[in-house]
Order: sequence, then structure tokens, then C-alpha cells
Amino acid sequence: MQQPTIDLDMPQQLTLYLHKLSPYSHRIELALAEANVKYKAHQVDLFNKPTWFAAKVNPIGKVPAITYGGPDVDPTEPSSLSFKLAESNVILQFVAELYPESGLLPKDPVERAKVLFFMDTVDRHFDKPGNEWMYGRTESYEGYLKGVEMIQGLLSESGEFAVGDRYTIADACIAPLLSRLKITYETDIGAFPVGQGTKLGGELKAPKYAKFMKYAQAMLERQSLRDTNDEAYLADTWKTLITERRV
Amino acid sequence: MQQPTIDLDMPQQLTLYLHKLSPYSHRIELALAEANVKYKAHQVDLFNKPTWFAAKVNPIGKVPAITYGGPDVDPTEPSSLSFKLAESNVILQFVAELYPESGLLPKDPVERAKVLFFMDTVDRHFDKPGNEWMYGRTESYEGYLKGVEMIQGLLSESGEFAVGDRYTIADACIAPLLSRLKITYETDIGAFPVGQGTKLGGELKAPKYAKFMKYAQAMLERQSLRDTNDEAYLADTWKTLITERRV
Repeated sequence: MQQPTIDLDMPQQLTLYLHKLSPYSHRIELALAEANVKYKAHQVDLFNKPTWFAAKVNPIGKVPAITYGGPDVDPTEPSSLSFKLAESNVILQFVAELYPESGLLPKDPVERAKVLFFMDTVDRHFDKPGNEWMYGRTESYEGYLKGVEMIQGLLSESGEFAVGDRYTIADACIAPLLSRLKITYETDIGAFPVGQGTKLGGELKAPKYAKFMKYAQAMLERQSLRDTNDEAYLADTWKTLITERRV
Repeated sequence: MQQPTIDLDMPQQLTLYLHKLSPYSHRIELALAEANVKYKAHQVDLFNKPTWFAAKVNPIGKVPAITYGGPDVDPTEPSSLSFKLAESNVILQFVAELYPESGLLPKDPVERAKVLFFMDTVDRHFDKPGNEWMYGRTESYEGYLKGVEMIQGLLSESGEFAVGDRYTIADACIAPLLSRLKITYETDIGAFPVGQGTKLGGELKAPKYAKFMKYAQAMLERQSLRDTNDEAYLADTWKTLITERRV
């Protein structure tokens, strides 16, 4: 669709279309919370998608998507005058660049590249095998553990943040996945064979994953995550949605 | 691996590890040519990968990868003092940010987001089904055509560039794929059923794809592409590598 021009010198409305199940829209909630941005959140019913969503916001019909600028309208009646954007990592970077004072993306090109490479690694080597395994592709278990090792190898020296010494969109990118990983190994909910979730939790307690687990714990304790996390809802919904696919 | 700190106020060496077959390393060649950057190019033998490449440059062993900064060394003996970076779209953005005067990435956050969204769409909806189809997953043919439509829908109004009125990393991202698409439908080389490459070429001549095809043609005529393109090599190598998988 044709995109309008937005005057960035003016304060502009921002609306986030999300769903509580989606770790990807959760990423944007975290970034906006960390940047202390006021915005409208609108839950899209993914099980019964409203037709206006694909027609007027994201042609692919997926969350997250945002509208930025244009008149302050009801989220169910998006304006043609707002800028529409989809894909979580693209939106993360947009948020970081709209609010540079948030420090969500470092200024130095090398440090920025580390943040973007971390996010790319999360999607390609951690989220992808993790999802495959969760939905019943048992052989992705090893790939998932390998992804944990790769992420651990990229963490900043102190291990407090993904990159450098402050919270960036690299942290916002992985934190929702870490929250979901914890639920998985604590509840054993997933389409993998019974007990494999618990087994993963056991393996991750080994000293070789200590840096990763310490980082994960720090991310889970972060206020922005606590304010936006609903473990009970996720566990309940997964139980219905995923466990029925159990292999 | 631990990454060193680089002083960006000093001129720094840049080495690109590439392979002629890879559209992804071709992306970086285009961006560097467009930014008029001097760099060292080193072809990595993908069919017999040297052990130092994964050990010292990219643990995943894939091209493109770059080293930036550190001493000016032989590319086969990379220094631990250079910054290493992999994944073509991450490198594209790094190059654009190292050389902001190139205009390869607009300053305005909305325009930047359009460039990054275009690149995401290229990988997700154009390159992915295109590759699947090329390697014999016949049913991805329709997805590939759908990807062409999606890309066309994103093109700037004039259709001269992907985004806005100048060459950006969005163009560098898709141009190598456009060059390969043309070879595919002109030569019918691929693992798809005989004649399906030619059929695609025919379909793309329909008026509904005119904007896409005009843009593709403009990209192929661009000097940076002409200087780095080797259609004969690609066609010859594909003939051996891919056609033997023909379904």
C-alpha cells in the first residue's frame, strides 16, 4: 500500500497491534516500555482475525504491526494517513530510532552492528529451532541447545546485557523468548515427547550454560518484562493449543 | 568470539569474504561499490572451505563475512584485532552506517524503516520461495510469483528505486536476486520441472508485473551490478550443481 509522509518534528500517535501469545509483539511492548513511550495497545483476535486488520494495517495479517502518525483514531478504524509497519525486528529498530534518547540502539556503527547481529542470531538460531521443537520436531532439540550456546557466546562480557552495558533492542528481541523457554521447561508443555521439556531444564543447569542462564534470569527480573508477562495465560493456552499435537 | 573495539575516527581496513555464486555476498559488493569504498575481496572456496575461515572469521562458515579495522593483513590470516561481522543484511546496514555520505540508508526513521522492511520482505517472501522453487520444490512457484507482487507493491512511486528517490541498501539487497531470476527464466536452469523457468519468464511479461520488471531492468543496467555480475559463470555452475536435482 502507498505510505504517507509523517512529520517527525511533531509528537505523533503510536498504536501497537499485538496478541498476548505472540513473543514478537511482546518484543515491541518491552522496547516501548523501556523507552517510556505512551502508546495505544490493541489486541488482535488471532483466532478470529478482523478483516480490517489485513486490509488496513498489515496485509500479511500478523502481529506485531504498528501505525505511527496521522489522526488519533480508534485502533479498529486505522487511518490511511498513518505510517504502517510490520515485522518485529524492523519495528524494534524503528522504535529505537524514533526515540534515540532511549539508548535502545547504540550510536557507534560497530556496537549497532553487534545489536543487529545478535537479533539476527536470535531469530535464525534460537527462535527457529526452539519453535520447531516446541511444535513437535523432536530433532530440533539439539539445534535449540546449540542456539543457546551461540547466544551465550555473543553476550556482553559482564553477561548483564546482550550487547554493551545497557538495555538495547537486542535484549527486547530475546527476552520474550526467554520467558517462554522458562515456562516450557518448568511445565513440560509442548508438542515434544513427554519429559523433554523438563530434560532441557535439567541440561541448562550445567555449568557450561551458567552465563546464559544468569542473563536469562536478569532479563526475567527486569521491570518491563514483569509488567508485560502473563505466564499463567501462556501456559494455559499452550496446554490447549500445542499439547494436542504431542508426538 | 570476543570482539575488539575499533576507533572509527581512523581509516580502517575492510575485507569482504565472498563467493561468486552467493547472491548474499554480491549484495555487499554492490553496497561497497555504490559507496565507493576501497576494500579487499577474498573468494572463499565454498566447495572446500579452509579451516581458518570458520575458526577466525565466521563460525558458521558462510559468506558473506567481513573484517573491519585492525592491522592490514593477508585475508587468509585474519587478525584477532579486527571486528568480524556476518549475515548479509546486517553487513549491508553496517556499511551504510559506516559511510553515511553514501546515502545508502536514509536519515529519516520512517524512510529507514521502509528500507529495512523492504529487505525483510525480500528475504522472507521473495528469496525464500525463489530458492525453494529453484531447488525443486515445485509448489513454491506460486509463492515466488506472490513475492514478486509483494515487492512490486513496495516499490517507490516512480519505480526507479526500492525506496525513495535514490539507491539504498534495499536495492543492493534485491539486485543480485534479480540478476539470478533473469538467468533462471532465460536459461530454464533449475531443479524445477523442465520448462517452468521459461514459463515464469512468460508470466512476468504480463502487464500486472510491468512495474516490477521495469525496476528489475533498471537494477540490472546499474553500473555497480554490471561490474560485479558474471551471468555465464552462474549459468554454467548452476547447470552442474542444480539441474542434477531436477524433479
